Amino acid sequence: MSLNKLKTISILGSTGSIGTQTLDVVRNHPDMFKVESLSVNTNIDILIEQIKEFNPKTVVVYNEKSFEQLTKLKKQENITCLKSIEILKGMDGLIKISSSKTIDILVTAVVGMIGLLPTMEAIKNSTTIALANKETLVTAGKLVMEAAIKYNAKILPVDSEHSAIFQCLNGENYKEIDKILLTASGGPFRGKSKGDLLNATKDSALKHPKWNMGKKISIDSSTLMNKGLEVIEAKWLFGVEADDIIVHVHPESLIHSMVQFKDSSIIAQIGCPDMRVPIQYAMTYPNRIESNFKRLDLFEISSLHFEKPDLEVFPCLKLAYKALKHGGTDCAVLNAANEVLVEKFLEDRIGFYDIPKFIEYALNEHTFIENPNLQEILEVDSWTRDYIEKIVK
Amino acid sequence: MSLNKLKTISILGSTGSIGTQTLDVVRNHPDMFKVESLSVNTNIDILIEQIKEFNPKTVVVYNEKSFEQLTKLKKQENITCLKSIEILKGMDGLIKISSSKTIDILVTAVVGMIGLLPTMEAIKNSTTIALANKETLVTAGKLVMEAAIKYNAKILPVDSEHSAIFQCLNGENYKEIDKILLTASGGPFRGKSKGDLLNATKDSALKHPKWNMGKKISIDSSTLMNKGLEVIEAKWLFGVEADDIIVHVHPESLIHSMVQFKDSSIIAQIGCPDMRVPIQYAMTYPNRIESNFKRLDLFEISSLHFEKPDLEVFPCLKLAYKALKHGGTDCAVLNAANEVLVEKFLEDRIGFYDIPKFIEYALNEHTFIENPNLQEILEVDSWTRDYIEKIVK
Repeated sequence: MSLNKLKTISILGSTGSIGTQTLDVVRNHPDMFKVESLSVNTNIDILIEQIKEFNPKTVVVYNEKSFEQLTKLKKQENITCLKSIEILKGMDGLIKISSSKTIDILVTAVVGMIGLLPTMEAIKNSTTIALANKETLVTAGKLVMEAAIKYNAKILPVDSEHSAIFQCLNGENYKEIDKILLTASGGPFRGKSKGDLLNATKDSALKHPKWNMGKKISIDSSTLMNKGLEVIEAKWLFGVEADDIIVHVHPESLIHSMVQFKDSSIIAQIGCPDMRVPIQYAMTYPNRIESNFKRLDLFEISSLHFEKPDLEVFPCLKLAYKALKHGGTDCAVLNAANEVLVEKFLEDRIGFYDIPKFIEYALNEHTFIENPNLQEILEVDSWTRDYIEKIVK
Repeated sequence: MSLNKLKTISILGSTGSIGTQTLDVVRNHPDMFKVESLSVNTNIDILIEQIKEFNPKTVVVYNEKSFEQLTKLKKQENITCLKSIEILKGMDGLIKISSSKTIDILVTAVVGMIGLLPTMEAIKNSTTIALANKETLVTAGKLVMEAAIKYNAKILPVDSEHSAIFQCLNGENYKEIDKILLTASGGPFRGKSKGDLLNATKDSALKHPKWNMGKKISIDSSTLMNKGLEVIEAKWLFGVEADDIIVHVHPESLIHSMVQFKDSSIIAQIGCPDMRVPIQYAMTYPNRIESNFKRLDLFEISSLHFEKPDLEVFPCLKLAYKALKHGGTDCAVLNAANEVLVEKFLEDRIGFYDIPKFIEYALNEHTFIENPNLQEILEVDSWTRDYIEKIVK
């Protein structure tokens, strides 16, 4: 299956859901991929296992304490796999591995704003980005896409919906897009009323019907903010206006998204929910390689459904559209406020509908900048986090 | 909307369903297309209207009597539109207009074997074929595709299913196809048992639930032979083996077909049933142009269904797979026998299940040739027609 030369990859966030599944693809195709660097926040136990298996040159431990732990372990005689490895820390470490000129693909699978600067560094080297970090495009989509064009760096989406859209656009002219039909499972609260959800708990919100994901993204899925963030990403990835991105609730989660073209044709990408499909597609693009992933049997499914999302029950989705249309720093505020508020909700410190309520406060209160630079985006992100911390006691 | 220079087209079969819809696309885009030649069998009244509107240089009237009628009309003073037009007849006429070096696209919308020779002539000039004539690939797929490669002529499918597959394969590597998922409405007899259909009448068979088509194709749709012929065409167009072409009965007829790739991803083409979509796509390929065709609203549809076809109730589909796998002259026999038998069924001279019964007789009785040339295919076609005429008294 060696369609290309061996591709060298680095993974930001190698112990998370996307990171481990990326390594699963590498594991199944040792003749196609080798790993140069891995990064983690604190999870050094799993990192050590990954080092043993994939033998990277460099690892980054973002968290200071965990970095010191790993550095200590390196000095112990019995952990031989660490002997020849370079261990870096923090943002400097992330930027160093991301700006390596010897990698073909940077997989950005970290959660949060820390993905932004390393991604920009990789883009400057024309490195292909397999993008799983939502914040990169949500907060700085305009700057990132401008840089990608300037430095001729490919941005390959890893999210199942954006990968689907990207696959539907294969061989097509983006100018001939009429609408993007972005599918959504509807999350654990599909079909609920606002009254039902007033006292929604984190436990019920964490029970996603279709995808097994991290806590942050699971809560975002229950509020439909996840879909809102995807609408924002889709605008930047595919150059389509907010009003032409139509969310379709599709509870079976088998159609991962669709594109309607100007001639009325719709192209859809369909398959079993398995993140390794879009991950592998980004890693092997423009080729598709044989996989043992479960095949969808449409005869078994027998039917596929579609519904409109209820923007009154899920105001986060409405807010995301509003922020996207208003532009400037709005999406960075939306994202930062949401991130902190989801943490608060997971700590049982706020209710379900406090998330959109306080996001709206932050949007109204912040100092709007029409065309922010990277520094201004980071500052507004920081301001928003402080603001939310202050108003949520 | 002028994406290209004006394309010159000729239409074989301009008064049929595909022919008139092709002219509808031309009518809507006079800045993109001009008509060089039109051909009809007998329908000279409609042809005269088309001549007035589209002003072709040449027309072919296949039927001798109708040709003479039109030639007489040309001599009358009052029909001015015919004055400067060249009128040709029969197969010689079809071959002459098809082998014109000044056309960009030949739309082959005739029904029956008469499409084969003119298409081959156009291919020899590297002319792009917008192929709506099933018999061309069903009877001589191997020869036609070999010639298309040799002369570097594009074969663009016009059938909604094959256009869908072709669209799904846009930008993809055909070697990465795993399976073609060919959808079928199921026809007017979907869900019926063999007992229900023993005395099926032509009137019930002609009532197609989704598409308004000619009589021959409507009967083929009721027996699922239509789908069988499409399976055969798909093999030749896309280089996929019979066992990898899976018919999915999809009663809503909104997914026009799908391709499953080796990585497990399925790409589907979806839209309202409207033949102008695939016709226009073939005419504007590789571009898509703005259209006023009805947009599909998936929220209105709410659900899509899939079922396996019942090969015992619809033995014609089974026979088509068998003929395709056996190869050689089998598909030409299947096609010719079916064509004559459908006529007999429309004349109330045979029953519904006599169609597959006598096709099977013909397949068993004919002198099989493994690698027939064009002449041998035409001969086996002719033999089969005579054979069926003899056994059906």
